[in-house]
Amino acid sequence: MKTLNLNRTHNCGEIRKSHEGQQITLMGWVQRRRDHGGLIFIDLRDRSGLAQVVFSPEVGQEAFNLAESVRNEYVLALTGEVKARPEGTINENLPTGEIEVYARQLEILNSAKTPPFYIEDNVDVDELVRLKYRYLDLRRPEMQKNIMVRHKTTKAMRDFLDQAGFLEIETPMLTRSTPEGARDYLVPSRVHPGEFFALPQSPQLYKQILMVAGMERYFQIVRCFRDEDLRADRQPEFTQLDIEMSFMDMDQILTLMEKMVASIFLEATGREITTPFRRIPYSEAMERYGSDKPDLRFGLELINVTEKVKDVEFKVFAAVVKGGGQVKGINAKGCAHFSRKEIDELTKTAAIYGAKGLAYIQMTEEGPKSPISKFFTEEQWTALLSEMKAEKGDLLLFVADKPSVVAAALGNLRLELAERLNLIDSEELQFAWVVDFPLLEYDEEENRYIAIHHPFTAPKDEDKDLLDADPSKVRAKAYDLVLNGVEIGGGSLRIYQRDIQEKMFALLGLTEEESKEKFGFLLEAFEYGTPPHGGIAFGLDRMIMLMTGRETIRDVIAFPKTQSASDIMVDGPSSVTTKQLKELHIKIDMPPKKVGKTN
Amino acid sequence: MKTLNLNRTHNCGEIRKSHEGQQITLMGWVQRRRDHGGLIFIDLRDRSGLAQVVFSPEVGQEAFNLAESVRNEYVLALTGEVKARPEGTINENLPTGEIEVYARQLEILNSAKTPPFYIEDNVDVDELVRLKYRYLDLRRPEMQKNIMVRHKTTKAMRDFLDQAGFLEIETPMLTRSTPEGARDYLVPSRVHPGEFFALPQSPQLYKQILMVAGMERYFQIVRCFRDEDLRADRQPEFTQLDIEMSFMDMDQILTLMEKMVASIFLEATGREITTPFRRIPYSEAMERYGSDKPDLRFGLELINVTEKVKDVEFKVFAAVVKGGGQVKGINAKGCAHFSRKEIDELTKTAAIYGAKGLAYIQMTEEGPKSPISKFFTEEQWTALLSEMKAEKGDLLLFVADKPSVVAAALGNLRLELAERLNLIDSEELQFAWVVDFPLLEYDEEENRYIAIHHPFTAPKDEDKDLLDADPSKVRAKAYDLVLNGVEIGGGSLRIYQRDIQEKMFALLGLTEEESKEKFGFLLEAFEYGTPPHGGIAFGLDRMIMLMTGRETIRDVIAFPKTQSASDIMVDGPSSVTTKQLKELHIKIDMPPKKVGKTN
Repeated sequence: MKTLNLNRTHNCGEIRKSHEGQQITLMGWVQRRRDHGGLIFIDLRDRSGLAQVVFSPEVGQEAFNLAESVRNEYVLALTGEVKARPEGTINENLPTGEIEVYARQLEILNSAKTPPFYIEDNVDVDELVRLKYRYLDLRRPEMQKNIMVRHKTTKAMRDFLDQAGFLEIETPMLTRSTPEGARDYLVPSRVHPGEFFALPQSPQLYKQILMVAGMERYFQIVRCFRDEDLRADRQPEFTQLDIEMSFMDMDQILTLMEKMVASIFLEATGREITTPFRRIPYSEAMERYGSDKPDLRFGLELINVTEKVKDVEFKVFAAVVKGGGQVKGINAKGCAHFSRKEIDELTKTAAIYGAKGLAYIQMTEEGPKSPISKFFTEEQWTALLSEMKAEKGDLLLFVADKPSVVAAALGNLRLELAERLNLIDSEELQFAWVVDFPLLEYDEEENRYIAIHHPFTAPKDEDKDLLDADPSKVRAKAYDLVLNGVEIGGGSLRIYQRDIQEKMFALLGLTEEESKEKFGFLLEAFEYGTPPHGGIAFGLDRMIMLMTGRETIRDVIAFPKTQSASDIMVDGPSSVTTKQLKELHIKIDMPPKKVGKTN
Repeated sequence: MKTLNLNRTHNCGEIRKSHEGQQITLMGWVQRRRDHGGLIFIDLRDRSGLAQVVFSPEVGQEAFNLAESVRNEYVLALTGEVKARPEGTINENLPTGEIEVYARQLEILNSAKTPPFYIEDNVDVDELVRLKYRYLDLRRPEMQKNIMVRHKTTKAMRDFLDQAGFLEIETPMLTRSTPEGARDYLVPSRVHPGEFFALPQSPQLYKQILMVAGMERYFQIVRCFRDEDLRADRQPEFTQLDIEMSFMDMDQILTLMEKMVASIFLEATGREITTPFRRIPYSEAMERYGSDKPDLRFGLELINVTEKVKDVEFKVFAAVVKGGGQVKGINAKGCAHFSRKEIDELTKTAAIYGAKGLAYIQMTEEGPKSPISKFFTEEQWTALLSEMKAEKGDLLLFVADKPSVVAAALGNLRLELAERLNLIDSEELQFAWVVDFPLLEYDEEENRYIAIHHPFTAPKDEDKDLLDADPSKVRAKAYDLVLNGVEIGGGSLRIYQRDIQEKMFALLGLTEEESKEKFGFLLEAFEYGTPPHGGIAFGLDRMIMLMTGRETIRDVIAFPKTQSASDIMVDGPSSVTTKQLKELHIKIDMPPKKVGKTN
């Protein structure tokens, strides 16, 4: 067991020419070693960066001898003098490139085997290897930066919210299962045989209870759990910034949250964000972008041409319009030259989202070219091209279907075109609030309404009467924060009166008994003086992914799970002992065919 | 759904005479209402305190009329003018006692039923009622203060650690079961039938892996889980401040942590703490206080009189000394007058901790009185009294047994005497580090060594050779932080070399295969350049309990579990559906006799 004989005085990455002549002690890892001209050069790495260390027999014979045994990733402590590098050896790509440290004393704190991959940015290594050796992957500067941005982000959140009078309050992890929406992770109870805790999908009920409790302003950076299939870039456990406040209206909440987001981006990334953010009603977002989380970094807006084509002889359009559907188009500027193959690919994308076809017009040098032109009168044709603001060189794309399909198909086509046309400035940040969501959606299969946000979201005051007359028309006091086409936060004003909450549960198909069994404590709490309140939750992983420009949230989580929800470093989940199961009053009930463990 | 028509301008508790003449808007809860002289007086309460509001028909007829319907705990918004209270009606016990607010406008935001208990400090209500109506309990000012101190404490921790270069890094909640020590909470995996995650008892392995990953300074305020029987004041889920750092020796770690603790106490409670803290070797703590977490707010130290009594004719003493045991005493100053009954009670306390008897000497006005005096020669007697620094009026108490029993019995007797004699200043804060713990303890039953701290704690350098020769003599590089007799933190320098870690696992009785199966990834990680590192974990709940002067950690947790590990507000744990269990590949395996659900 080696003792530490030296005291670290500096970090590697912070040594500058101003340190010249100083005796310093560094500790860190060997990035690489070179032998040159009777000297040994070691790039020493710590969290702060690299410094070049020189071992010379004249400066320290013992240190020099020891340095000969050193390999990559050895852990060293060394003392030496900072010297300016000779002319011609200055490395301008390195913050410490003007100096080097002449080592007098060296201590090898630990040795290292050759790692399975080199510790540097942009390594070409299978992600499963990176996850298995996460302790090596996290040594890479880009990963260290992600973790640091994450730290700075949560620090900035807490600083801002503390200043604004919010209290961070912890809520339970072992709570009650209320199956609704996503699947719960369950935890068998040893003390109460046959009963289970659930890990929280969010602290929604607790944070509302805290408002009833008079805490007024609550927040928490909190782990949440959803046992869902991990097709997309999701994790079984994820972190959210959870916020709730009393006595505020929607405008006050959005304004405060904008200030917070701007403060976070400034503190964690140094970037200035302009506020207020755009506020886009849900209906407008769907109409213009075909999405409730529009990417506003580029145009390519959807244009409604239903009126212009409703009388044309093209049967597809006519039938759709007659059936209450719509026809909308996108003007892909300058894409008239797209090949048949490219247009086929776009058609396939549209098909994924349910479109039965993709009509197009190529605005070639020789004039418009299109399989559908023959169905139009001269006048109809001109009107359509004018509505689409078509110019020579453009490619016009159309989908005709019911509104939800048109939105999905063209909305996603819009994203694909932006990629193909390289319209996206990856440095740009486009924030927007999407507001005025519908409160409810009718589920034909289940024959009941479903809450678009969740059952605790308040209806807009002016739509309150529609709750009885036409629930699907009621808009919610809900808001999503969208950044570059990604939803990074969402929230609402809440229902805070028992009768309205009961009406909501009834619309969602819960019997009186069921609502009492699941949410009785909340309904009861509402009767003891509940203040008007609302809140929001931000997805921390996704927000930091966008801040660091990564492509997956796994790169901003220290120890993520794989796509099959396992931790391949510690090899979890794992089998447990029969004694453990017995104590928990459960037995394994294997499915007929063993599903192999895949990562 | 009531809309908020007013904008809150002030908090109730902050209105002072300097606000006189201002129009302000307050929102909050009705603490109480009185009608007097044609006026209505309402004490309005929010998180910040109380303000007196006056409703007068002359100032606002409509508001006055509305105020007549108001009851306790109604939620109000009101606008009015701040006026100085007339002479003779000033309330000096209230920070806002010099003013009152004459309401012009009133909005009833919500009504309230009569709560099951009155919202005020020191209510005499069964704790189970408080927990069921936690949203009302948390409205009480003393509970709000606890939550605020908790918020300030974690904020101060984060501010300090951020300044000191620590990164807050989240570690997984769904991790691997490594049954060792306490019982794990298990989480069945849907994706991997028959396998289980475990909720972390602490992030110990992950934080060490983060050191291997070159993060250098890590912390996390993190939820941990132990499925233990809740005899003492424990919770199934609890929060700890978890810290780990590289390249630091023990002295540097303790010094930094002392600074942090002082900073936390100053920020969260305004109290100045003197550093450095006392450092007491484990052996000295046991010798002088009979405890490894001594309460240093009072004396009553244990005095070893083995040498003085080893030759007396009292068989009990002689036999114990001959058998390698010891005889120790406490001088209970001024307690000579204790009655037979009181001495019997003390004897019972000693018996709880294994003592077979309690010898005593009463230093009465007439001279020493004791059942054991007859076994002593004059010389022996004088030597004993002198060693005990006995004076007229003192009561001397002795236990003879093996050292562990003597320590437990006299250590607890010491605490009981301090209580009885009212020696403890509840405002005093006495911190100490207990150091030089034994590394291992031999378990006769299991026929193997047990790690006193945990298997990753490093042995002291100078005791390293004893690992082979006499493991039970090896001291650990471990330290506990004790405050007023409560252990609030504990940590150690860690083993960071594979061979020593393997030797440790072997001493603990793990076969090579078992250590590989459980901790293989750690052993492997140690080979890739692991820096020397160490850390500590503080029990947040206990620390805040001491800071707020509460008697149970349940008072500083927003939503604690009961002693039977249930949440009686949401009624968790609960039964779940067969579908849920089927998806998780488990079945309930009820014990033969159903254990009733008790809270």
